[in-house]
Amino acid sequence: MKKDKLKTGYQGVPGSFSEQALSEYFNIKTEEYHFPDFEDVLIHLQNGNIQYGILPIENSSTGGISETYNLLRKYDCSIIGERCLKIEHHLLGIRGSCVKDIKQVYSHPQGYEQSEVFFRNHPNINFLPYKNTAESAQYIRKLNDKTIGAIASRKAAELYDLDILAEDINFNRKNITRFVIIGKEQKVSKSCNKVSIVITVSHTPGALYKAMGFFEENHLNLTKIESRPLIDEPWHYYFYLDFEGNLRDPIVISALENVKSISSYFKILGNYPCHNLMVKDGGQNE
Amino acid sequence: MKKDKLKTGYQGVPGSFSEQALSEYFNIKTEEYHFPDFEDVLIHLQNGNIQYGILPIENSSTGGISETYNLLRKYDCSIIGERCLKIEHHLLGIRGSCVKDIKQVYSHPQGYEQSEVFFRNHPNINFLPYKNTAESAQYIRKLNDKTIGAIASRKAAELYDLDILAEDINFNRKNITRFVIIGKEQKVSKSCNKVSIVITVSHTPGALYKAMGFFEENHLNLTKIESRPLIDEPWHYYFYLDFEGNLRDPIVISALENVKSISSYFKILGNYPCHNLMVKDGGQNE
Repeated sequence: MKKDKLKTGYQGVPGSFSEQALSEYFNIKTEEYHFPDFEDVLIHLQNGNIQYGILPIENSSTGGISETYNLLRKYDCSIIGERCLKIEHHLLGIRGSCVKDIKQVYSHPQGYEQSEVFFRNHPNINFLPYKNTAESAQYIRKLNDKTIGAIASRKAAELYDLDILAEDINFNRKNITRFVIIGKEQKVSKSCNKVSIVITVSHTPGALYKAMGFFEENHLNLTKIESRPLIDEPWHYYFYLDFEGNLRDPIVISALENVKSISSYFKILGNYPCHNLMVKDGGQNE
Repeated sequence: MKKDKLKTGYQGVPGSFSEQALSEYFNIKTEEYHFPDFEDVLIHLQNGNIQYGILPIENSSTGGISETYNLLRKYDCSIIGERCLKIEHHLLGIRGSCVKDIKQVYSHPQGYEQSEVFFRNHPNINFLPYKNTAESAQYIRKLNDKTIGAIASRKAAELYDLDILAEDINFNRKNITRFVIIGKEQKVSKSCNKVSIVITVSHTPGALYKAMGFFEENHLNLTKIESRPLIDEPWHYYFYLDFEGNLRDPIVISALENVKSISSYFKILGNYPCHNLMVKDGGQNE
């Protein structure tokens, strides 16, 4: 019997970094769907139209991606894996154009922010934000104007038949985006060595410190803390914590019970194998 | 002798929330300069072209503004004050247009993100990002097209002679942006009750917890922790900490000395009077 292909989803258009991270993660051909908004990925996952979705969660140059943090909290889903991808931005133009022709450049604001040094040195290029990098490439191809460029990937240049006018314009050679792979249910296996949770603590001074103490005293290594605002209470925060551990380990179970007992909100976002990408200047090795 | 007016600067164009926060903070008429980029504010401050600048640092719905955090670390400057401003977004169009005419809307991505519920309910309106909210208002006025709208403030509608097609479209009634006022030098007075610092700690597990312990044991209330990535070391972070205190207080001095002793990077960003804005649904009271 022929097995049905996995159905997967990402935000953006073909040629996007999300699509690339998705295909690297699964390493087999999946039936890929793409959607205009981040939230669509979660909606289609919830409705069963796809089995897995992928969302970017953090860039090593510009930080956490708020929308993804909010959606992971809001939807009933679980992080089942992560994938780090080296991001290389190029300045693209229509065939026959060159850097000095470009007066306007479209891209996602993150593409521009990550290439700010290049644009500081090219002050005549005016930036106009666009939905995402690959779509900006698609868009300038349609405009077909020598004075208009896009910041996007090599794959986007190939897909939309554009020239690369300037290579690797991101200022940070170690520019990595981390993506999370999201499924409907949590599946804990032996290889899961990273746990992500989100909590809120009471407004009493030191409450976060106390929560962190439960990890500390159990020698559980907190690898990440990210604060996101509580919508209804200005200047109070959700804390997203990542730590090394497996949800079947009694020490982890006990630490989380303690954290939960002093949290006003508590959610386990997932337990999954950590993905490390070692990046050298100009190269990429795993 | 007539005193020269203070020279102040902000990013954006007249009608922006930065301009509004600036004029509310100083409460006297200053000589205002506006610049295309956030970094320009710091450059002109450094060059002595302005005495004070203002930058948005955090929104209560969408979180910290990365670029400001990075610039405060990079430039030799000091936070001398803060101002919270209630943000109300409106859907603007050219005179005579109405909501159902609008097919495309320009704004800063934050304006769109903060109004996402409205646009979920108006799926025919396509979002195109723009540099900032006030500039998007200025831009659609130039386009003079009934199908094109902007998300911006009431003041922008007045300045650029646009109609308000839908009022208060931000989903969060308590939508506040906090701005920091930046000067060249630190001035500590008695009224300064909030300290902002940025540190990096060693990669050993528990190092951040240890740093936080110095505040805890001195009963200094940490009000905020924000992590921003270290550019050259993926997944290591700068921690921006705010706490209640005055830099002349011996307890504060001693706690900071301890924190500094275990930090690989340490910078005091400023000591200034905290600004609290109590916002009720639909109203604003200080």
